[in-house]
Amino acid sequence: MATQTKDWILECALTLFNEQGEPNTTTNAIATEADISPGNLYYHFHSKQDIVEALFDAYEQRLLDILVTPPDRAADLDDIWLLLHLSFELMGHYQFIYRDLTDLCTRYPKLHHRFMGIMRLAKQTATLMADDLVDSGIMVATKNERDAMVENILLISNFWLANDRIRSPKGTIDPARAVAQTIEILKPFLIPPARELLDSIGSRYH
Amino acid sequence: MATQTKDWILECALTLFNEQGEPNTTTNAIATEADISPGNLYYHFHSKQDIVEALFDAYEQRLLDILVTPPDRAADLDDIWLLLHLSFELMGHYQFIYRDLTDLCTRYPKLHHRFMGIMRLAKQTATLMADDLVDSGIMVATKNERDAMVENILLISNFWLANDRIRSPKGTIDPARAVAQTIEILKPFLIPPARELLDSIGSRYH
Repeated sequence: MATQTKDWILECALTLFNEQGEPNTTTNAIATEADISPGNLYYHFHSKQDIVEALFDAYEQRLLDILVTPPDRAADLDDIWLLLHLSFELMGHYQFIYRDLTDLCTRYPKLHHRFMGIMRLAKQTATLMADDLVDSGIMVATKNERDAMVENILLISNFWLANDRIRSPKGTIDPARAVAQTIEILKPFLIPPARELLDSIGSRYH
Repeated sequence: MATQTKDWILECALTLFNEQGEPNTTTNAIATEADISPGNLYYHFHSKQDIVEALFDAYEQRLLDILVTPPDRAADLDDIWLLLHLSFELMGHYQFIYRDLTDLCTRYPKLHHRFMGIMRLAKQTATLMADDLVDSGIMVATKNERDAMVENILLISNFWLANDRIRSPKGTIDPARAVAQTIEILKPFLIPPARELLDSIGSRYH
């Protein structure tokens, strides 16, 4: 029962954070949304920071699961598309984190530290996948080109949500479109048959 | 004299905004930094919003000058590198705008509207330049590929400062490195001699 209330509070907080931004959401507003008293909310979470951290915990856990799934073979284009798709959908679910990432990292140094850990893992996974594509002969790119590719993919991954929000503040987000846009970074390095394969993978997700 | 004081206030405000973020800077802090009374500051600017708008005016004016300089011939790689370099240096000078772009756009709808105007012009300029490269035979890319290229270049342009800030909160910003990173987007589409030329242009800016 206590766990149920706790989860319900987190769900309501996530809705408000995503809709109006975490800095603009008070714990009282969360209590109102959850239809519980501020005292009851305080029993479960002593501060807004506790709520933010609990949501970040859940996000981090799910993202790490996506990033560390050990491949039992060399990664192919399908794996890359799926990984980006799952990650971007998850980011959309927790979009308040990416709405003002700099601000969040400034106000919550502990989360900033953990975010940097996620980034290191993401970079490692992306680099391994790029290496696999080259080893499989479907991508032609030097080590420097792969490094630059990975940097740009990570940057776009972190900011596509903020970019969408600026271009269309009230619009619904579209992770599938963002994945397709991100994948353009590696596309020119693929050999022609692999480029065509990529287009056919993309059409499956739309 | 009045203009001098006004400019001095703007200079002090820009320093504080860049250092600690615009939302965390009060008009009183700006008056203290400028070594004038709050009353004197109020005589020149009635609110922080007035100061933010005056700084945005100056930024916008200088960026538009860079973006609309009419080329008397087809743009080449030198033009593109120089344009990115001048823009990114200017963005670095007014970095508070890009620190939390979503937040700034949400709190100042008028600036959001003008920012969208700048983006439209930037997209137009970038598209023309990509077309020029294809027409000159130094780039091979379909219309779709050029559109995706432009989208990704604009996204990286808007968020490289926020990305640098997250990776290294206390670090100095490095527009030259960010330009080199951004230019990687179009590099794979260049014919090999043009790629080499690009590398030699890049080394001139470091």
